[in-house]
Amino acid sequence: MALIPEPMFALPSLLTDKSKATANIRKMAAKMPSLSMFRPHFKTHQSEETGQWFKEAGIEKITVSSPQMAAAFIHQGWHDITIAFPLSIHWVPFINAYAAKVSLNIIVEDVDVLKSIISGIKVSCGVFIKIDVGTNRTGICVKNKSYLDTLVQLLEKAPRLQFKGFLAHAGHTYHAKNPQSIEQIYFASFEALCLLKTKYMAAFSDIIISYGDTPSCSIIPKLTHFDEYRPGNFVYYDLMQYHLGSCHFEDIAVCVQSPVVAKHLSRNEIVLHGGAIHLSKEYIKIDVQKIYGELVSLNPDNTWVRFPERAYITSLSQEHAVSKVPTVILNQIKPGDILGIIPVHSCLTVHQMLNLY
Amino acid sequence: MALIPEPMFALPSLLTDKSKATANIRKMAAKMPSLSMFRPHFKTHQSEETGQWFKEAGIEKITVSSPQMAAAFIHQGWHDITIAFPLSIHWVPFINAYAAKVSLNIIVEDVDVLKSIISGIKVSCGVFIKIDVGTNRTGICVKNKSYLDTLVQLLEKAPRLQFKGFLAHAGHTYHAKNPQSIEQIYFASFEALCLLKTKYMAAFSDIIISYGDTPSCSIIPKLTHFDEYRPGNFVYYDLMQYHLGSCHFEDIAVCVQSPVVAKHLSRNEIVLHGGAIHLSKEYIKIDVQKIYGELVSLNPDNTWVRFPERAYITSLSQEHAVSKVPTVILNQIKPGDILGIIPVHSCLTVHQMLNLY
Repeated sequence: MALIPEPMFALPSLLTDKSKATANIRKMAAKMPSLSMFRPHFKTHQSEETGQWFKEAGIEKITVSSPQMAAAFIHQGWHDITIAFPLSIHWVPFINAYAAKVSLNIIVEDVDVLKSIISGIKVSCGVFIKIDVGTNRTGICVKNKSYLDTLVQLLEKAPRLQFKGFLAHAGHTYHAKNPQSIEQIYFASFEALCLLKTKYMAAFSDIIISYGDTPSCSIIPKLTHFDEYRPGNFVYYDLMQYHLGSCHFEDIAVCVQSPVVAKHLSRNEIVLHGGAIHLSKEYIKIDVQKIYGELVSLNPDNTWVRFPERAYITSLSQEHAVSKVPTVILNQIKPGDILGIIPVHSCLTVHQMLNLY
Repeated sequence: MALIPEPMFALPSLLTDKSKATANIRKMAAKMPSLSMFRPHFKTHQSEETGQWFKEAGIEKITVSSPQMAAAFIHQGWHDITIAFPLSIHWVPFINAYAAKVSLNIIVEDVDVLKSIISGIKVSCGVFIKIDVGTNRTGICVKNKSYLDTLVQLLEKAPRLQFKGFLAHAGHTYHAKNPQSIEQIYFASFEALCLLKTKYMAAFSDIIISYGDTPSCSIIPKLTHFDEYRPGNFVYYDLMQYHLGSCHFEDIAVCVQSPVVAKHLSRNEIVLHGGAIHLSKEYIKIDVQKIYGELVSLNPDNTWVRFPERAYITSLSQEHAVSKVPTVILNQIKPGDILGIIPVHSCLTVHQMLNLY
């Protein structure tokens, strides 16, 4: 709805820590032998300013997850973009409009969709075939050789589509139990995509294998295996990544500023203005408890520090967050105070906070 | 971020069914002896158009959950508004700006906050004391008699604040196991608020008791107990309300139009463009499975019909929805088709879809 746009009267708002985010960018970039291998996913931040931090670090190629996001970053001066979401046949007019202006890559996984694209495309465009490395969401399983052959043969005969290679997202690393499982997923994915590259590179010498997900790109010390890496979340990280072992708590570069609106001593609870519409209902489980965020103390310069003891958001409704707070912290807090909430999943929280009103 | 605002190329979009929504409004209004008892919560729809449907049904008083939402509806011509969220001391300038123009009610539950409001308020404003009837979120427990006395005494001495009565939201009905439990919560809440009204009405003859939540207001046949009812969700309903027994499936008046982008015969799954940023990650459990929405077939006039067999959204990421689909439905669906997704929690889905870009 057309709400009053400007943040007013200490409403929940998004804080980012530039020094942490730029350190995260530099650290990830330094893991790759060449910056040209780095195509960060911009869906996490969706921000012109944060995009600029990537530009200043020398990054020129980006990943997005929707045509609108591609359009927005094209308007902000980015000119080499992969839309890492299965191309819908309804987007062909978009591709015709934008691929003429910038270098655009799309991903396909369905023979009939690819045929529709081939018949509708009027401009030159890069195409990756999406491979499912075990996430069971989108993509073709490497074992499905004849289907992959059919896709490649269609691409070979499509003069406007350049076959760029194979692209995978190992989303199942987000559910891994420990860093060792993440490593296993990374190397199994590498093996699978390597076999594909080897098979098809005789006919297509320039094809690459492109891979991305923050847990593996954070945990693997040197990113020297795939030809391209597309992590996104790492720029801000979040509570989920911290608990997966992808980052230190101090690397988390995003936080929701949230006013305390009530205090209930009998239950050791405070209620904050910061609900599902701000944080999203993404949760992690710590022991058996659902956790929607962790409270931090805010500094006057909009940085934050962790409390000596943990204080988690334990339930969320549309506008409310309820936090069970250790007594030592509870005694320092009163309604009207403004605290920070470290989100469970920064991509969702940032999207919601940027598009709140 | 500043994304291209207009829906383009069959992106996920929100559909509402006016005839169902207006029937839901009429049905709820008809349960009350007088329309003046009805103060529907507008956080569910946040829409000028849907607001107009309420206006046409004779409703003049509304509830909102934030100062920005109050400001937006004031700009749309509403002039009797309760902000049903504990007033933050940071909002006092907002109250001073808007309570001078319209009839505004706020809610309080904290003695120190109320003292701050009293010292900062410059205009006339209505005040409800928030009562916790068992949700354990915000509000004062009725047993906390001395605290309630203190709040009432402060209000009595505050010339600009008019003590309006006691307000409760029985949010725990959303977790009830069956309609009988919802009825029990309703009548227990009524008894608790009745006692308070009886106690304080000798000194404050005009105080009322105000209650709201869609499950109880839907399940109780005649709403003749409280002085005011504030349900919100009922205008659209959703999958959660249907499974709670608050409505029929055919009463649900909102749906997310969502293009199919992939089909995986080996898993009986389709992938749709419609993720956590569209639907929210709110889920219900059916048997032991988390469900994020139910697929429906769309008609050319943007209405929808239920499939003969159930097809649920079983996992959600930022932009993707995965649905396990019965074979008979799967055979009719191909990528590029556009289906509807009935959301689990319409308030969150509608908020996100209205504020998507």
